[in-house]
Amino acid sequence: MFSIGVDIGGMSMKCGLVNEKGQVLDTVIVPTTCGDPYEKTINDLIYGIKNLLNKNKLYPDDVNGIGIGVPGVVNVRKGTVDSSANLKWENVPLRDMVQEGTGLQVRLTNDANAAALGEARFGFKWKYPNVVMITLGTGVGGGLILDGKLFEGNEGKGAELGHITLIMNGELCGCGRRGCAEAYASASALIRQTKEAMNLNKDSLLWKLCKGDIENVNGKTPFDAAQKGDKVGEEVINNYIKYLGETILNYNNIFRPNAFILSGGIAKQGDYLIDKLKAYCALYDWGYKNTPVPELLIATLGYESGIIGAASLYL
Amino acid sequence: MFSIGVDIGGMSMKCGLVNEKGQVLDTVIVPTTCGDPYEKTINDLIYGIKNLLNKNKLYPDDVNGIGIGVPGVVNVRKGTVDSSANLKWENVPLRDMVQEGTGLQVRLTNDANAAALGEARFGFKWKYPNVVMITLGTGVGGGLILDGKLFEGNEGKGAELGHITLIMNGELCGCGRRGCAEAYASASALIRQTKEAMNLNKDSLLWKLCKGDIENVNGKTPFDAAQKGDKVGEEVINNYIKYLGETILNYNNIFRPNAFILSGGIAKQGDYLIDKLKAYCALYDWGYKNTPVPELLIATLGYESGIIGAASLYL
Repeated sequence: MFSIGVDIGGMSMKCGLVNEKGQVLDTVIVPTTCGDPYEKTINDLIYGIKNLLNKNKLYPDDVNGIGIGVPGVVNVRKGTVDSSANLKWENVPLRDMVQEGTGLQVRLTNDANAAALGEARFGFKWKYPNVVMITLGTGVGGGLILDGKLFEGNEGKGAELGHITLIMNGELCGCGRRGCAEAYASASALIRQTKEAMNLNKDSLLWKLCKGDIENVNGKTPFDAAQKGDKVGEEVINNYIKYLGETILNYNNIFRPNAFILSGGIAKQGDYLIDKLKAYCALYDWGYKNTPVPELLIATLGYESGIIGAASLYL
Repeated sequence: MFSIGVDIGGMSMKCGLVNEKGQVLDTVIVPTTCGDPYEKTINDLIYGIKNLLNKNKLYPDDVNGIGIGVPGVVNVRKGTVDSSANLKWENVPLRDMVQEGTGLQVRLTNDANAAALGEARFGFKWKYPNVVMITLGTGVGGGLILDGKLFEGNEGKGAELGHITLIMNGELCGCGRRGCAEAYASASALIRQTKEAMNLNKDSLLWKLCKGDIENVNGKTPFDAAQKGDKVGEEVINNYIKYLGETILNYNNIFRPNAFILSGGIAKQGDYLIDKLKAYCALYDWGYKNTPVPELLIATLGYESGIIGAASLYL
């Protein structure tokens, strides 16, 4: 049997046909036309799913169901997208519309939850029953695999791992609170921290790397500078490692997971990032005396993780 | 069938005979002789358990097993107490010694985990499948009931809910890190905050309430002062509510539990505490837009919660 996984993003909706081994056999990609009424966007998605089935000569009976990963707050009970800043959606009845349009069963989950399930099950083949996944992109997202199952919390609204305080009364966060991990450890926060350091250090290599225009800074720039020995870049990165390290220590104390999996743009730094994080966490015995040291890993499924994870809801 | 629950504390070890309804039918209390070799203390415990069986004319076959709640870091896999500041124990093979001494099966868990299980199952009769329990005593402890089961993490070392940062680089915490919730929201932290305020305000009612001697301050003093309209007491309590409120908001974002249960000395403030916490959390939409509002409750089982919770491991 097959299952369909859908990864909805701000730019495109990726529909994938996935088999029981978690392999993506075929994909159809539909643009997400932001600003259009949601009915139009969901009709485009239904068209894409039907196209995927037709291309592969499959009938609805050949498919277990459709899992959809959504960038936003979903209500898994009602099957609605309560809010999504990326899609500019509020209270959209996504599940029922796609069920009606395709004749298939549909389940929703948050996109980071989907990615966590995909990585734990097919990326790492259930080597780790307890996994904390942290996505380091524009925001900080999270997914929790506890005792071998996706944990979503009431209405599927848990695992908002970017929204715990690192510094009470600190930087304003998009969620309305102050001092959240997202406000310090996201790629956007790292870019802000880099720009602040550049404005104080006009002769840093950082300026050269972005050709004199501070607006060219991205999440990679300070890592590049640090790896080339630039003192200002190193300081930016070392501070960033503290923020991300404290976030990891917090989740280690709460979950004692077998593994942390990092994904998103910042995770592309690979071993350089992992080695620095391990060194920081070791300073604090990984959070507490006698604590088991978890694995610290980079996600392996790449851009397919969202499709595979969403499809896992029916595999 | 019956089960035996043991609640080990720094002063005494409470052994209770518990039935399937979670009722404590009889107890034997044995003093915890701190400073003695652990072998002596554990032999006293075994004697107490045998005494409880004899008094009730029960044979080992009449009992499912013995659950033990330990104030410290346990390794549930090895059955050891890796460290307990209260008991001054390190690497003590508690499970095997009690199994050998009684001929009964034994499981260990952290004492706050035991209390959480007891409250969720017998205090609130599984009304709430997802529960975050926070104990507000000398430290801040925690227990997690997720999807209707006790979640303990790797080796049973998770749910250290007092050890997440509220303020990075803040107050030094007993765990070795800085800025943990325990360093701001425990009863000990509240006492410290009260003393600091008293030293700056020599005419506060707080001085009268502790008869002019600052060493008489306890976790109740600032609540008493605030409720009598003392401005300094009110300020201490309002600040404390912020620390505890942020802790609750953090755990709401992570778990979206159906309920929070508060226990420990501070929780004796009941509705006064709950009302203030609810008002604080409501300022932030309980942490995030569209979040389901959890119940905020005071533990109901009192000093028996540890016995009942530990016994639940075999009920």
